[in-house]
Amino acid sequence: MTSTASFPAYASYKNIIVSSPSPFVAHVEINRPQKLNAFTQELWLEFGHVFKQLSGDENVRAVVVSGAGDRAFTAGLDVQSASGDGILFGSQGDIAKKAKVIRNHIEEFQDSIGAMEKCEKPVICVLHGISIGLAIDIACCADIRICASKTRFAVKEVDIGMAADIGTLARLPKLVGSTSWVKDVCLTARDFSAQEALSVGFVSQVHESKQAAVQAAVALATTLADKSPVAVQGTKELLNHGRDHTVAENLRYTQVWNAAAVQGKDFSLGLMSGLKKTKPRFEKL
Amino acid sequence: MTSTASFPAYASYKNIIVSSPSPFVAHVEINRPQKLNAFTQELWLEFGHVFKQLSGDENVRAVVVSGAGDRAFTAGLDVQSASGDGILFGSQGDIAKKAKVIRNHIEEFQDSIGAMEKCEKPVICVLHGISIGLAIDIACCADIRICASKTRFAVKEVDIGMAADIGTLARLPKLVGSTSWVKDVCLTARDFSAQEALSVGFVSQVHESKQAAVQAAVALATTLADKSPVAVQGTKELLNHGRDHTVAENLRYTQVWNAAAVQGKDFSLGLMSGLKKTKPRFEKL
Amino acid sequence: MTSTASFPAYASYKNIIVSSPSPFVAHVEINRPQKLNAFTQELWLEFGHVFKQLSGDENVRAVVVSGAGDRAFTAGLDVQSASGDGILFGSQGDIAKKAKVIRNHIEEFQDSIGAMEKCEKPVICVLHGISIGLAIDIACCADIRICASKTRFAVKEVDIGMAADIGTLARLPKLVGSTSWVKDVCLTARDFSAQEALSVGFVSQVHESKQAAVQAAVALATTLADKSPVAVQGTKELLNHGRDHTVAENLRYTQVWNAAAVQGKDFSLGLMSGLKKTKPRFEKL
Amino acid sequence: MTSTASFPAYASYKNIIVSSPSPFVAHVEINRPQKLNAFTQELWLEFGHVFKQLSGDENVRAVVVSGAGDRAFTAGLDVQSASGDGILFGSQGDIAKKAKVIRNHIEEFQDSIGAMEKCEKPVICVLHGISIGLAIDIACCADIRICASKTRFAVKEVDIGMAADIGTLARLPKLVGSTSWVKDVCLTARDFSAQEALSVGFVSQVHESKQAAVQAAVALATTLADKSPVAVQGTKELLNHGRDHTVAENLRYTQVWNAAAVQGKDFSLGLMSGLKKTKPRFEKL
Amino acid sequence: MTSTASFPAYASYKNIIVSSPSPFVAHVEINRPQKLNAFTQELWLEFGHVFKQLSGDENVRAVVVSGAGDRAFTAGLDVQSASGDGILFGSQGDIAKKAKVIRNHIEEFQDSIGAMEKCEKPVICVLHGISIGLAIDIACCADIRICASKTRFAVKEVDIGMAADIGTLARLPKLVGSTSWVKDVCLTARDFSAQEALSVGFVSQVHESKQAAVQAAVALATTLADKSPVAVQGTKELLNHGRDHTVAENLRYTQVWNAAAVQGKDFSLGLMSGLKKTKPRFEKL
Amino acid sequence: MTSTASFPAYASYKNIIVSSPSPFVAHVEINRPQKLNAFTQELWLEFGHVFKQLSGDENVRAVVVSGAGDRAFTAGLDVQSASGDGILFGSQGDIAKKAKVIRNHIEEFQDSIGAMEKCEKPVICVLHGISIGLAIDIACCADIRICASKTRFAVKEVDIGMAADIGTLARLPKLVGSTSWVKDVCLTARDFSAQEALSVGFVSQVHESKQAAVQAAVALATTLADKSPVAVQGTKELLNHGRDHTVAENLRYTQVWNAAAVQGKDFSLGLMSGLKKTKPRFEKL
Repeated sequence: MTSTASFPAYASYKNIIVSSPSPFVAHVEINRPQKLNAFTQELWLEFGHVFKQLSGDENVRAVVVSGAGDRAFTAGLDVQSASGDGILFGSQGDIAKKAKVIRNHIEEFQDSIGAMEKCEKPVICVLHGISIGLAIDIACCADIRICASKTRFAVKEVDIGMAADIGTLARLPKLVGSTSWVKDVCLTARDFSAQEALSVGFVSQVHESKQAAVQAAVALATTLADKSPVAVQGTKELLNHGRDHTVAENLRYTQVWNAAAVQGKDFSLGLMSGLKKTKPRFEKL
Repeated sequence: MTSTASFPAYASYKNIIVSSPSPFVAHVEINRPQKLNAFTQELWLEFGHVFKQLSGDENVRAVVVSGAGDRAFTAGLDVQSASGDGILFGSQGDIAKKAKVIRNHIEEFQDSIGAMEKCEKPVICVLHGISIGLAIDIACCADIRICASKTRFAVKEVDIGMAADIGTLARLPKLVGSTSWVKDVCLTARDFSAQEALSVGFVSQVHESKQAAVQAAVALATTLADKSPVAVQGTKELLNHGRDHTVAENLRYTQVWNAAAVQGKDFSLGLMSGLKKTKPRFEKL
Repeated sequence: MTSTASFPAYASYKNIIVSSPSPFVAHVEINRPQKLNAFTQELWLEFGHVFKQLSGDENVRAVVVSGAGDRAFTAGLDVQSASGDGILFGSQGDIAKKAKVIRNHIEEFQDSIGAMEKCEKPVICVLHGISIGLAIDIACCADIRICASKTRFAVKEVDIGMAADIGTLARLPKLVGSTSWVKDVCLTARDFSAQEALSVGFVSQVHESKQAAVQAAVALATTLADKSPVAVQGTKELLNHGRDHTVAENLRYTQVWNAAAVQGKDFSLGLMSGLKKTKPRFEKL
Repeated sequence: MTSTASFPAYASYKNIIVSSPSPFVAHVEINRPQKLNAFTQELWLEFGHVFKQLSGDENVRAVVVSGAGDRAFTAGLDVQSASGDGILFGSQGDIAKKAKVIRNHIEEFQDSIGAMEKCEKPVICVLHGISIGLAIDIACCADIRICASKTRFAVKEVDIGMAADIGTLARLPKLVGSTSWVKDVCLTARDFSAQEALSVGFVSQVHESKQAAVQAAVALATTLADKSPVAVQGTKELLNHGRDHTVAENLRYTQVWNAAAVQGKDFSLGLMSGLKKTKPRFEKL
Repeated sequence: MTSTASFPAYASYKNIIVSSPSPFVAHVEINRPQKLNAFTQELWLEFGHVFKQLSGDENVRAVVVSGAGDRAFTAGLDVQSASGDGILFGSQGDIAKKAKVIRNHIEEFQDSIGAMEKCEKPVICVLHGISIGLAIDIACCADIRICASKTRFAVKEVDIGMAADIGTLARLPKLVGSTSWVKDVCLTARDFSAQEALSVGFVSQVHESKQAAVQAAVALATTLADKSPVAVQGTKELLNHGRDHTVAENLRYTQVWNAAAVQGKDFSLGLMSGLKKTKPRFEKL
Repeated sequence: MTSTASFPAYASYKNIIVSSPSPFVAHVEINRPQKLNAFTQELWLEFGHVFKQLSGDENVRAVVVSGAGDRAFTAGLDVQSASGDGILFGSQGDIAKKAKVIRNHIEEFQDSIGAMEKCEKPVICVLHGISIGLAIDIACCADIRICASKTRFAVKEVDIGMAADIGTLARLPKLVGSTSWVKDVCLTARDFSAQEALSVGFVSQVHESKQAAVQAAVALATTLADKSPVAVQGTKELLNHGRDHTVAENLRYTQVWNAAAVQGKDFSLGLMSGLKKTKPRFEKL
């Protein structure tokens, strides 16, 4: 694995490993390989916490997320674990009350996964092996998606009798270029391949192995970590804002955002370095 | 033709045939082949009614729509018929009053075609032959688009001196991955091919003949009809909601939607079948 | 160059040439080739004025925009010129006051470039050579994008320590079919090629040279100029409206728009010409 | 009662009387006084149909709606009737399936009452006596509200264990000037008086008796019926549009709306009559 | 009149007087009293230019706008002048083309009046005498409305056969607390009094004479001009933003806005002055 | 004080007291009376936590919030404490970096106060004495506002050189009926009285003393606590949703919400109790 240095600040997570393969780059690994990295509630709460911590950590400028082991990015929800906590199968109780419990449960789950999207640093997601159900929800929250050539993708929820509710249906159609394809894979729950994912624009790189994909992601993250954090984080923010707003709204927001940002040193340093053809070193943000 | 069983409940339509090629699948055929399936007001009102009926029919879980005959899915509006009712060419009368008549006329037409999008069951549209003008408006209301390899597509309205007003301009840019291409075909009214439609993501399958395309559509519809109707219809609803809302809005709506949906039997049945590797049979919805 | 006739009404611009390569077609050339067509404030203000003038000029029905010279569409902001006016580098002064100055400055710049999008006539942008930074902001405001095969594209702003603020981040994700790709090029500031631009749908034609691209653009503009101006301008308006509205909103707006538009002569003329297979000649708009 | 002439075109409704107290004015009376004008499904479907018919009837320019009899505008839903059709109390069946039935049921009910708001002619609602539950939902769909001094108002739904779902919660906060008051009456389900309704702006006139209130409403409707239908209907449309849009959106929509409207004869006639101090007579719309 | 000092920078306007009754306060007077301050195109273009100039003028911190003379704030559009330019009465020409001309004409007019709302400094509008039609459109663009006790208000447009299109219908319902009242005055075009305007919240002060109202406005403007321009202009911006956005949107925008604003000196100066009970003097903005 | 029983579950807060004056009612007291209940960061974080806890506590159905002591609800931010943590006055450091710190700081503060609005149970806010600055931000997050007759209100932020950023500018205009009044008090920072607050609809009850106001609030909360929690919490949710959505959006959301809610026992129990004139007892939610 590329990762070499560990991040002591992230040592306490039980199901997630955070290492630092290069300066200012964090590598987050979902670490339940023996369970195909399936998610328990404990894991998704940790996942949310990790990304809130990374968002505020000035020693991190770019993040790579991947699944530990060879077999899966993640096979999705750990159904056995979920059964145990009664949320899914508890048939007792008042329907209105259960509706409230379910609503709050889905919200907690959505918020935990969505923390990756809210993280102010760019996130590159590496998919490999089994990448179904929740794997797609997670990947949709990343900024850039890269995969191994043998990845098996599926929006699997219809096959367990439910509509996907952790974000795939909200985000996937806004990430790719064919709604006909989106509806096909979401309604049929069929597998799709790395090549298909590339051709519709879901991923932007396919590599021959998981290892190669992780290396490419780390290299890309390293490139981002060398650039102005003010510029990189502002670009992420403005792109995400633009997805959910009109062009006019986004233009106005951009004015107000940059009114502070370009008064920072990164802009004058970046501009000067460009003119002088030197390589700038930016301060932490 | 694949269709074998008829649907007595849909026998009264004059310009539309509804048959049932497989259980829970309805096949809707626009049936004015001698007029290239051009639309009269009578036809579009029937079209709206059919899809409202299908939406509420628990014996239908997936719909295929196609045009009868070999020559055309539809050549669009039946201009001769439209001329007769005075809406298009009546030059008399007060401009403000005519504006009101036209507005209400377009609204009725939009609502009739849009009933296909509002139909709670997934709709697969099969295009072949001449598929111009209104054909694109209709196709844009489907969930999945499939076509024959010789299909001749065009957003034709500019060539009759008007901006398309039954939905193509509203929906097409949200279905495909290149606005430059959308504007090209909408402004020039030029023909485009099945291959071009596939490469921009407008259709997701191209078959060598109309017959092969209909067969593929029926097979796909049959797959959908085997799945949980709660999951399939919920997925369609949440995807359509997402097109017109921010991610945050859609996530909240999803919480509230699934708070009732996952209390139904389909979810526990689907989940159990997944664990036990059995094939579930879902109740009508 | 294809352009032959000049437009006297546009003779006073210093940095922009406007000619008329065919009837009702205007060709706008950014004309600072010795500076790689880099933009000074004088140039962007002229750019805004040109497009406001074209928007209201009934002798213009379609516009081609390109950069003069062989080397660049534009290399972006003229940094030396910008340095001189103190906006970028003035380190003195109250932060809140500077924030206001910067906000208003960005707004003026956005409005000038955005005038191309607001222009009621369709605009075809021809990119060639160096097409970085502001070049992308500008291209995103066009309706159709065409490029030469050797074009060097880049969303370059991150490399000068800032998030792009003249429109690329607002518009690019809505023009193409892969958000993963958009974030890659916007966050890394890397170059991308004409072929890549075509494959993601950013441009819809690639030609072997700038000259061939301009010829193709003029031919396309000529085609548009032959069509009903009511239909063409309405189509542009309704497509642009649709980008920033829900489908339901756009459908209603379309009703109200066409309630006046189809009462004009273009519609009856277009319809009749279609029936009679004659070529219509439309009046000025 | 003020009403004198009957409207033959509206004679077939069973639970609603439509008369014409003055030219171009329609008076709609909810007519189940022996049941306190409580609503059955038959009644609300008729209610929706009446207003769709009035909307398209060029002999109607303004509408007054009131409840027959002395005791109530309406006491709300006819609970006994509702119990009979199984929607409310049917405890059998799958929860997800029942959710779908309930959703569609509420939608039908909302659409029927909302037809009054969608009616293109202004509607004046006269409230008296018992005006609780559905009475508020209905009143909120009117343009102008007038009441008798002894009217007993209440947003009553919380007292039957549910949140109001036919429109009060959507519309009431947008009609009056104190959210603290809105939440007080909606959460407590307490009665409020005509005077209180006037002071918060819910009604704009209070009269000493139902008869006086109806007379005032008819007089007001007669005033509206004398004015330009193009102006009156346009004003209603633009005000309703404005409620759900930003100011900028509404201004643009207004441009497009009036681009046809002021080309009609009403505008030149109205303008000339104003200059000449004559009373214009407008054509039907 | 309170105004004493003149503003040389504003001396060139023909129909508008700008004076300075106290430091940092501008008093804008609509100055066609012999025509009841009716608006020609020349006047409304000047009106727009004045407010754009005031918005960028660091010597102005608060603005009072009133009408010259005793009889009218403004009687609205100068119909005779408008007739002359052919826009209103020109009956010739293609309907679609005229629709475009009218659309652009209304947009220019809306933009000119709306410049008062966009002005970054707070504007206090003083109404007196005849204040009908356009007077309401203008008043709605102000931040604070004050009037003389004898003011005669009316939303007059329906009486000339048209729906108001310069902003009253867009803004008035968002300024006051009773939609029933808004629709009453907009649909009937009836007069309403200063007292009625106060009771529905349209104005927030009524004074016995125009002179007293102007004095009160100048006093209020002087109060505002003593305060931090960063705080005052930010408050106006955030309140106006909030009108057209959700609470969540406005809260986020506020974060970004204040991230620059509170780094300015006004905040530390204001905070210190508050602690030390001294009166701060703020720098120009 | 009315409060009698304590809530052990809330015993650990340092600056906030939570007691239970009647069953299912919680009384939250801001408890720094010696500092006029001014807010430190510790206090606002506790404030957020309390309301998150109350939101999920099935033993709480309605909440009263007030300030401890006789002198103040709250005098706003504790400026001395804020100075200490360096956020407000730290003049060192990069402007872009400080902008990020400030943004995140305001967001944390907004989220903490906004937790009261997000609390699923209705909240009644009792204001008395000094109620300025943050007091208004907090009050705007409550559902119902009640005050003592001597309350001194002010939107005070302009007087410390900043635009209010914790929610007053976002929410106040949507709570009351006169924008002219809102801008007056927000721009001038002047005091306003209980009577003025009542007349514009900011509060809905004024009582002669703080004690009387708290008693009235507890009585009102007790009334709410007796009602169906499904109905009460649903009503709060749908009203809050409606504030930020169009009527059509809210109606659809209501359908989906009630599709689960009316399947609960509260609805059948409430309906039956209404028919039988008995008093229902609802289960915890």
